[in-house]
Amino acid sequence: MKQSMTFIPTLREDPKEAEISSHKFMLRAGYIKQVAAGVYAYLPLALRSLKKVETIIREELDKIGCAELLMPALQPAELWQESGRWNQYGDTLMRMKDRHDRDFALGPTHEEVITYLVRDVLNSYKKLPVSLYQIQTKFRDELRPRFGLMRGREFVMKDAYSFHDSYESLNKTYNDFYQAYTNIFTRCGLHFRAVQADSGNIGGSESCEFMALTEVGEDTIVYSDSSDFAANIEVYNLPEGAPSPDGKGTIRHAKGIEVGHIFKLGTKYSSAMKAQFKDENNNLKDIIMGCYGIGVSRVLMAVIEQNHDDNGIIWPKALAPYDVHVIIIDTKNEKQVQTANYLEDLLTKNNYEVLVDDRNERPGVKFVESDLIGLPVRITLGRSLEQGLVEVKFRNSQDKVEIKLEDLLTYLKNNY
Amino acid sequence: MKQSMTFIPTLREDPKEAEISSHKFMLRAGYIKQVAAGVYAYLPLALRSLKKVETIIREELDKIGCAELLMPALQPAELWQESGRWNQYGDTLMRMKDRHDRDFALGPTHEEVITYLVRDVLNSYKKLPVSLYQIQTKFRDELRPRFGLMRGREFVMKDAYSFHDSYESLNKTYNDFYQAYTNIFTRCGLHFRAVQADSGNIGGSESCEFMALTEVGEDTIVYSDSSDFAANIEVYNLPEGAPSPDGKGTIRHAKGIEVGHIFKLGTKYSSAMKAQFKDENNNLKDIIMGCYGIGVSRVLMAVIEQNHDDNGIIWPKALAPYDVHVIIIDTKNEKQVQTANYLEDLLTKNNYEVLVDDRNERPGVKFVESDLIGLPVRITLGRSLEQGLVEVKFRNSQDKVEIKLEDLLTYLKNNY
Repeated sequence: MKQSMTFIPTLREDPKEAEISSHKFMLRAGYIKQVAAGVYAYLPLALRSLKKVETIIREELDKIGCAELLMPALQPAELWQESGRWNQYGDTLMRMKDRHDRDFALGPTHEEVITYLVRDVLNSYKKLPVSLYQIQTKFRDELRPRFGLMRGREFVMKDAYSFHDSYESLNKTYNDFYQAYTNIFTRCGLHFRAVQADSGNIGGSESCEFMALTEVGEDTIVYSDSSDFAANIEVYNLPEGAPSPDGKGTIRHAKGIEVGHIFKLGTKYSSAMKAQFKDENNNLKDIIMGCYGIGVSRVLMAVIEQNHDDNGIIWPKALAPYDVHVIIIDTKNEKQVQTANYLEDLLTKNNYEVLVDDRNERPGVKFVESDLIGLPVRITLGRSLEQGLVEVKFRNSQDKVEIKLEDLLTYLKNNY
Repeated sequence: MKQSMTFIPTLREDPKEAEISSHKFMLRAGYIKQVAAGVYAYLPLALRSLKKVETIIREELDKIGCAELLMPALQPAELWQESGRWNQYGDTLMRMKDRHDRDFALGPTHEEVITYLVRDVLNSYKKLPVSLYQIQTKFRDELRPRFGLMRGREFVMKDAYSFHDSYESLNKTYNDFYQAYTNIFTRCGLHFRAVQADSGNIGGSESCEFMALTEVGEDTIVYSDSSDFAANIEVYNLPEGAPSPDGKGTIRHAKGIEVGHIFKLGTKYSSAMKAQFKDENNNLKDIIMGCYGIGVSRVLMAVIEQNHDDNGIIWPKALAPYDVHVIIIDTKNEKQVQTANYLEDLLTKNNYEVLVDDRNERPGVKFVESDLIGLPVRITLGRSLEQGLVEVKFRNSQDKVEIKLEDLLTYLKNNY
């Protein structure tokens, strides 16, 4: 993709409203733009990274036999009245009336709708278990939206729901999701820990939060650098730097960004909304449920929070919007322009995603913006191209090397 | 995918509310389920087909250099007041207030938001043209929602917007979209015509509707079976069966389902919202815009409307949720079950998408539901499997053939 043809509205100054690095860089590098408080447009670079998170999620949930569907954002109030949450949920539930004066909620979560969809269908133990998920835009009228995509009023979530005839079956699926989440966040390049958690107002009996470890975030986490051991500091008040319980590592403190959450819901919704199945003895019972969320847009923020320097984002390969940034130093130099086209074509055919800076801008501006945007590989086409050389620099290193044009593909394959 | 693990809530009876075949079959075959009037959940089968339409759209728009982004559904009233549409749009605009009593619209279209995003950024002729698109959920409070996904209140659209410094540039991009749309609808397997159209309340100077030709739909179209020639019957009142103007074909009448629409918007929004650029002489001018929509969920309805029989849907290959339906006649027969697993694995590795009916249901039920669901290829594992034979039937034909298991893959490759 030519940079002149896409839309990357970089900012020269740090935006005043951004308190944390990920928010600052997503705004400055032209990934997102605010449309209203807590409401953002995902510009082309952010959307590409977002779709990579989504693809990873889909692949890992497919593996555990979870089927994808898509539920509506508009939810009739009647369903929320059935579950009792229409009155409980408070002001964060966005409400509206249609032209016939009927009440609707804009879905912040979909327990009611999914329970409505499966009841009377999953009506026998023979049809259970089933797990369903969606990746969808959610709405939550936060009192104080902040940190960009971290605490927004409109955001992208993956929410999954499972349905069971026994707690053994729920436990098995819960463990499948635990493993799938571990795979997803690992593949996204996140440094994270799983923490036993309160289930809040979703209800239910057991839950676990997946927390990305950063210097910012809303909870303080105690973890060991040698194991999966992690807890909220309220639960384990161990001092920073102490030996970890396994004797192999050291206790660390970090702030946590919640990127995932898995719940054993039990029968809270099925009982309130009469979603029942017949067991082997023909007895009617409430379906046992689990629910499993990932803050898809939050994952982006957390990854950037963990991967940046003073100059901008440093994308891990898995989520980078493009792999390679080709910089044309002089757009009036025909050889540089032709070589950029040649490289875009060659690298694309070899499954690299390429962004070509073909804009008529000063080299200094291009380099600053390239660092801001943070693609893993930068290839500069400048004067030394006359000698058949291109400059290669990785975003996560200061080293630059000059490579013969004909050796470039091999070099990339060996080093990226 | 095993049918027992996904969610396909078929209905035994024709749903009363469905007036047209596509709506009836999407409900009966468990593709969609209504959550409120004009508001549907896309169940797993429908979502798979929807994603295939989306992929075709993305591939064709990539080819014409259009970059994808994702704008929010929540749109602050201020933007609609700037364009003047807050008061003009009427009751189909879904409106709400946030907790601070600020007015928002749920986007039925995104001219205001995209103009807000690009203004002050695309501020020079050097930065033009740019084309941007999104595939996103839209909201429209239809007075009488009907025909399922055809006239819904929440639906999936692809909307694109282009920005230009001259009408020549707009015309070129408009023609690019015309060609891209032709490719998209052709690849979707649609029988369609492009019709010059009123631009309605979007405003602007020239527009063209892409109409899927069916027996149902909201406009009567006059077209020739020998060419692209088509018009609304109000414009060309030619009799059915008359020779077409090119002398090579015959005039036909059909009802049209609008699946796409391309507009030359001109400066309606840029002028109202002050989205301006400096030309080569440093004069400020209004950006010239185009906009281009596809009703993604509507495409599904139109394709089904054109491809069904009395028993159910007959998917064209490009949009089928799965390619192959493997039917296990007797789920207690270990050989049948093992062969189903073997085939699922083999065919998946060969890039076929496979749904296995592993449910403990009577064969009659399975065949009826298989026809309803409408996957292109049905493979039945029954008694003749003892002789190493499987039955293959294509959904668009009555013929059944028995094939040796070891020849099946070759047979499929040659015939599908």
